[in-house]
Amino acid sequence: MTDAYVVGVDMIKFGRFPEKTVPQIGAESALLALDDCGLGIQDMEALYCGNLMQASAMVGQRILQEIGQTGIPVVNVSNACATGATAFREAWASVKAGLYDIVLAVGVEQMGKGLLGGGGPAKGIPKEGLFGSGTMPAVFAEAGMEHARKYGTTFEQFAKVSVKNHHHSTMNPKAMYQIETPLDTVMNAEMISYPNTKLMCSVNVDGSAAAVIATEKKARELGLMGRAVKVRASVLTSDRWQERDLVMPDVNTCTREASAKAYEMAGVGPEDIDLVELHDCFATAEILHYENLGLCGDGEAGRMIDDGEVALGGRTPVNVSGGLLSKGHPLGATGIANIYEVSTHLRGEAGERQVQGARIGMTHVIGLGSACGIHILEKAA
Amino acid sequence: MTDAYVVGVDMIKFGRFPEKTVPQIGAESALLALDDCGLGIQDMEALYCGNLMQASAMVGQRILQEIGQTGIPVVNVSNACATGATAFREAWASVKAGLYDIVLAVGVEQMGKGLLGGGGPAKGIPKEGLFGSGTMPAVFAEAGMEHARKYGTTFEQFAKVSVKNHHHSTMNPKAMYQIETPLDTVMNAEMISYPNTKLMCSVNVDGSAAAVIATEKKARELGLMGRAVKVRASVLTSDRWQERDLVMPDVNTCTREASAKAYEMAGVGPEDIDLVELHDCFATAEILHYENLGLCGDGEAGRMIDDGEVALGGRTPVNVSGGLLSKGHPLGATGIANIYEVSTHLRGEAGERQVQGARIGMTHVIGLGSACGIHILEKAA
Repeated sequence: MTDAYVVGVDMIKFGRFPEKTVPQIGAESALLALDDCGLGIQDMEALYCGNLMQASAMVGQRILQEIGQTGIPVVNVSNACATGATAFREAWASVKAGLYDIVLAVGVEQMGKGLLGGGGPAKGIPKEGLFGSGTMPAVFAEAGMEHARKYGTTFEQFAKVSVKNHHHSTMNPKAMYQIETPLDTVMNAEMISYPNTKLMCSVNVDGSAAAVIATEKKARELGLMGRAVKVRASVLTSDRWQERDLVMPDVNTCTREASAKAYEMAGVGPEDIDLVELHDCFATAEILHYENLGLCGDGEAGRMIDDGEVALGGRTPVNVSGGLLSKGHPLGATGIANIYEVSTHLRGEAGERQVQGARIGMTHVIGLGSACGIHILEKAA
Repeated sequence: MTDAYVVGVDMIKFGRFPEKTVPQIGAESALLALDDCGLGIQDMEALYCGNLMQASAMVGQRILQEIGQTGIPVVNVSNACATGATAFREAWASVKAGLYDIVLAVGVEQMGKGLLGGGGPAKGIPKEGLFGSGTMPAVFAEAGMEHARKYGTTFEQFAKVSVKNHHHSTMNPKAMYQIETPLDTVMNAEMISYPNTKLMCSVNVDGSAAAVIATEKKARELGLMGRAVKVRASVLTSDRWQERDLVMPDVNTCTREASAKAYEMAGVGPEDIDLVELHDCFATAEILHYENLGLCGDGEAGRMIDDGEVALGGRTPVNVSGGLLSKGHPLGATGIANIYEVSTHLRGEAGERQVQGARIGMTHVIGLGSACGIHILEKAA
C-alpha cells in the first residue's frame, strides 16, 4: 500500500455560533483546509464527513451544497467523541488503499442542537441527576478516584492538568479561551464531580476542522511535499467484553490496545513522540491517558504533571493547543482538530507555542460506547 | 488491489418489531450472515454498521454488545436510503485495500423510532402536508409525471411495476408481504400522490441484513470460495450542482453517473446483467431507473414493463425479491438486503424465484440528499 499524507489541514477558531448551520460551520474549515494547500473542491475525489449530533442528516452532502457539488462520493460517519478521528481514518484508508488519490475529511459539531441536545445524559443511561452516576462527569471522576486510591494521585495533581492546558491555550488564537487559570482558581471553581471542578471539564463549543489527504505520488505531482505530514499509524479500537460494572464504562482498556497497535504500526515507541494531543475531556482523563499511552509507567502520571514533563518545554508536551479543557470540544470536530495541531507543529508553524524540533506526534480520542482512535504523524522527509 | 468476495450474507424476514431494540434487530442478521459461512464474531477484523435514524447512537458497538465484544474497529455510517450500501462499500474498501482480510457489514433500521420518526417530512423541507410538494411521495410523483409528459408513460404502466413486484414477493419468504395485487387493485387503491397509489409506495418496515466480506486469499483459506460472490464494482456518487428547482431534488443524474462508472469498473454492460435489485421506493421510480441504469433506452421503460422483460422469466428480471414495494424498505438495511438477494441468485439458492443461470447481478439504491450506490456482483469462478 502507498503512503498517505496530510497535505492541507486547518480548523476554525472554536466558539459558539447559534446563528449558523452545521453545514455552514463545516464548510468554513473545509475551505480553510483547501486554501492551506491551494486546491479547490473540484480537486477532491471523495468526502468523508464526521458529525455526531446530526448524524442522520446528510451533513457531508450539505457541506458540498455550501462549497460546490461535484458528484463525488460522500460518506457520513459517527462514532461518539471519536467521530472526527473515524472520518479522518476512513479518508486515510481510501487513499492508502489506492481507491482515491486525494480526498477531503471534515469534522464538525454544533453543540446544543441536534439529537443529544449537547449536555444532558444520553438516552438509556440512568438519570440520577445531571452529574450523577452513569453520566460523563461521574464516569471520569470515578476513574480518577480509582487512580487516586491505587497510586495516591492528589486533587492538586489533577488540577495542575487544567492549569497547564489553559496556559497553553493563551498561545493558541484558535482556542475558545485564552486565559490563565492559576491553581487556586481551578481548585476553588464550582465542584462538578469530585475531583473535577468546572475548570477541569471540557468546554462545550461549536467548531470544525478539515484535512486534505493524498497519496505520495499525488502530493509530489502537486508540489505539496514541502509541508506534507505523513500518517505513520491509524488505529481504531472498541471495548472488549469484560467483567465490570455496566454503568461504569472502561475508559482505559481500548486506549491501551489502540496505543500498542499504533506504536507497532508506526515502528516507534513512546520515547519517539515529540508531542501528544490526547482526549482531556476531564482533567482526570488526561492523567489516566499518560499511562494508557505509555508516556510513563503505571502510577507515574502524578509525578509527570508535577515535574512539568508534559508542559510546553518539557520532555513530551501534551495538549499544547489548550486541549479539550480550554481549546474546546466540539465532539465530531475534535479528532481532526488534533490532527491540525500536531501537523502545525511538525510543519514548524505553531508560532509562540511551537514544540521545538517536533518530528513525530500523536493524536488520541476516545468516545464512550466505545471507540478509541489514535494517529501517529511524522514530518515528511 | 486484491479482489473482495461476499462469503456470508443473510437478512431477517422484514416486519414490525416494536418490542425489540435496533441493536437486537441488527444482531439477528449479523448472526445469520456469520452462520451462513460458519464463522463467529471472533473471526471478524472490523465492523461497518449502517443505520439512519439512530445514527448518533453507536449502533455498531451496541450490536457487538449483543453478540460479542472483541475490541475490533467499529465504523458507523449513515447516508439516507443509501446507508446500507455505504456501509457495505466501506467494508468492501477496507478489504480491497488490504487493511483487513475479513470484515462484517450490517445494515439495520427500526422505523417509527429515532430521529426521523419514520414517515413525516424531514426537517427543513417545506411542510405543505404529508404528501405535498417537497415530500418524498411528491418528489417521485412529479418525476413520474415528467416521464409521462415526455414519453407518454401511462398510469397503468406505472401500476404494473407494483403488480410485478408483489407477485415476485409471493415467492420470497423473507418479504414483508406475500400477496398478489392485481392491476385493478393497485390502480384503485388510495391515491397518495398521482400517479402513485398506496400500493405503489414502499412499505415501512423494520429489518436488517448483513454480509461477511473477505479477500480471495482468506476466502480460499477458509474453504469458502464455493458459495462466494465477487464484488466486481462498487460505486457511490452524489448530486452535481445544476440549475433546478431546489424543492425538487434530481432523482436521475446521480444514478446515471453511478451506473456508467459501475459498468466501467466491472468491465461489463447492461446486456451482461442477469438480474437487478433497484430502488423502487415508488412505482414511478422503478420506471425511471430502467433508463437510468441503461437497461433500456430513454423513453422505452413503459414498453419494458408491458413486454414483461423485467419480470421473472424475462430478459432482465428486476426486483425479484419483491422490492421495496412488497419486501419492504427498512432504510439502513435495504442496501445490504439487495446484496443478499442478488448473491442468493448467483449462488443458485433462490428456490421458486430463482433467476435461471444468473451469473452477474446489480444492486442500486438512491438516497435523496443525495447518495447513489451501485454494486455489480458475479458468481465466483
